[in-house]
Amino acid sequence: MNVVKVMVNGLPGSMAQTVAQQILQDERFKLLPYSLTGPEIQESRCTVETTALELIAPDKRESRIAQIKQSEGPFLTADYTHPSAVNANADFYCNCGLPFVMGTTGGDRSLLEQTVRSSSIAAVIAPNMAKQIVGFQAMMEYAADNFPGLFQGYSLEITESHQKGKADTSGTAKAVVRYFNKLGIPFAEESIVQIRDPKIQQSRLGIPEKYLSGHGWHTYTLVSPDSTVRFEFTHNVNGRKIYAAGTLDALLFLSDKITAAEKARVYSMIDVLRGV
Amino acid sequence: MNVVKVMVNGLPGSMAQTVAQQILQDERFKLLPYSLTGPEIQESRCTVETTALELIAPDKRESRIAQIKQSEGPFLTADYTHPSAVNANADFYCNCGLPFVMGTTGGDRSLLEQTVRSSSIAAVIAPNMAKQIVGFQAMMEYAADNFPGLFQGYSLEITESHQKGKADTSGTAKAVVRYFNKLGIPFAEESIVQIRDPKIQQSRLGIPEKYLSGHGWHTYTLVSPDSTVRFEFTHNVNGRKIYAAGTLDALLFLSDKITAAEKARVYSMIDVLRGV
Repeated sequence: MNVVKVMVNGLPGSMAQTVAQQILQDERFKLLPYSLTGPEIQESRCTVETTALELIAPDKRESRIAQIKQSEGPFLTADYTHPSAVNANADFYCNCGLPFVMGTTGGDRSLLEQTVRSSSIAAVIAPNMAKQIVGFQAMMEYAADNFPGLFQGYSLEITESHQKGKADTSGTAKAVVRYFNKLGIPFAEESIVQIRDPKIQQSRLGIPEKYLSGHGWHTYTLVSPDSTVRFEFTHNVNGRKIYAAGTLDALLFLSDKITAAEKARVYSMIDVLRGV
Repeated sequence: MNVVKVMVNGLPGSMAQTVAQQILQDERFKLLPYSLTGPEIQESRCTVETTALELIAPDKRESRIAQIKQSEGPFLTADYTHPSAVNANADFYCNCGLPFVMGTTGGDRSLLEQTVRSSSIAAVIAPNMAKQIVGFQAMMEYAADNFPGLFQGYSLEITESHQKGKADTSGTAKAVVRYFNKLGIPFAEESIVQIRDPKIQQSRLGIPEKYLSGHGWHTYTLVSPDSTVRFEFTHNVNGRKIYAAGTLDALLFLSDKITAAEKARVYSMIDVLRGV
């Protein structure tokens, strides 16, 4: 298998750093020592592990990318930048012929897909790069579509815990509520219990101290009307590594698609999961 | 909606009793005061709640069923008898034109289906009547078929607890192991942790005392290679009510099929779940 060359854009941002680290540690990949960065970034260099990278400011990216393409040959791009940059970056990637994995959320998503579909490149676009969580949601969606009313009469409790700064309710939990609604449970998003207090997170949930600042824990509990049956589904994520791992899977998937000469195609994480 | 008339066979057996009780409590059904029973049963009567039922011994069933059909009109049958009676009972139901839900396990299952398919009746045949457990297994099967390798690298622990008398490993847990194998985890059936000690069940798992003699608790725990991600799926069943509830759902489903004049058809619990 050929080594997959990747440029991670969005350094020195923390998600971009986590992805760059995992790429450095994985022999299936080669990290290119460059990263497109935002206009607010003053530094022109940054270090991931022991690798020094050049941070490329917006006004220099067109000329630098042309040079890098010449010296490195074809490569893939992973975008962990900023919601406000999503559409402009996609335009840039499409114009330069850089296939990309878009790990950044926000922006105009339908325009984003349209940009790729009218270009000559392929891209993986996913609002959630955590492969196993996406798989769990797909299982729930399958049940909701095929077994409506399966949990009719059951009571439901949903608890989610995230770092103190997160103001809104977990998007994953809200999506799962919609599946449970189809499964026969009239549960409102507002009934999701949000835990944001680090003391409770540590003492009651047992979340490790180092992850108080970055975690996503979810538990769904179903109890039958006569209380004799209890189902519980839990997915607890600490830190960002699961998203980086999913990004690497998406990059390998995209690399296969490029080899197969796919163009103007948008893939989702479900496509990556299916692996076809 | 017409009331569905049901004869529950296998009284005074405990599963048949649980089903008969739930039928008595549900106004969508009418319990016929008769039950086919085995040759070893001495009694000719039995009481469920306050309803007295006639127990019909094998040598009298042909003539009694003919009389009952004449007096009651069409009715459905739920079979909770004995593995050794499964095939002979199915023959009898098919010959007498009694559509049935087969809740009894064992016997020659492929012959059982064949018997129905070459008859003029329809039947629901399910080794597991717990609708929500069947639904959970279907979700796992969907993931296994569509997202092979989803949990590659994850470690897996499976713990199941059942009443002291149960010698073999949970069949549900073994089925779920096969799905996890497809999902990328090389886990052997023998690694399933079986708990059969009532003391541990009470103190460590917190199983209520009244259910120590009849329960099926299952927990599947998945941990990512770097330990940052944890998934846990639990389904805990106390007593037999979930199976009785599923039997009632299967009876309603079968009643609709009879109304639609379906014949020579075998339905599974998945069909009941789909409701189509």
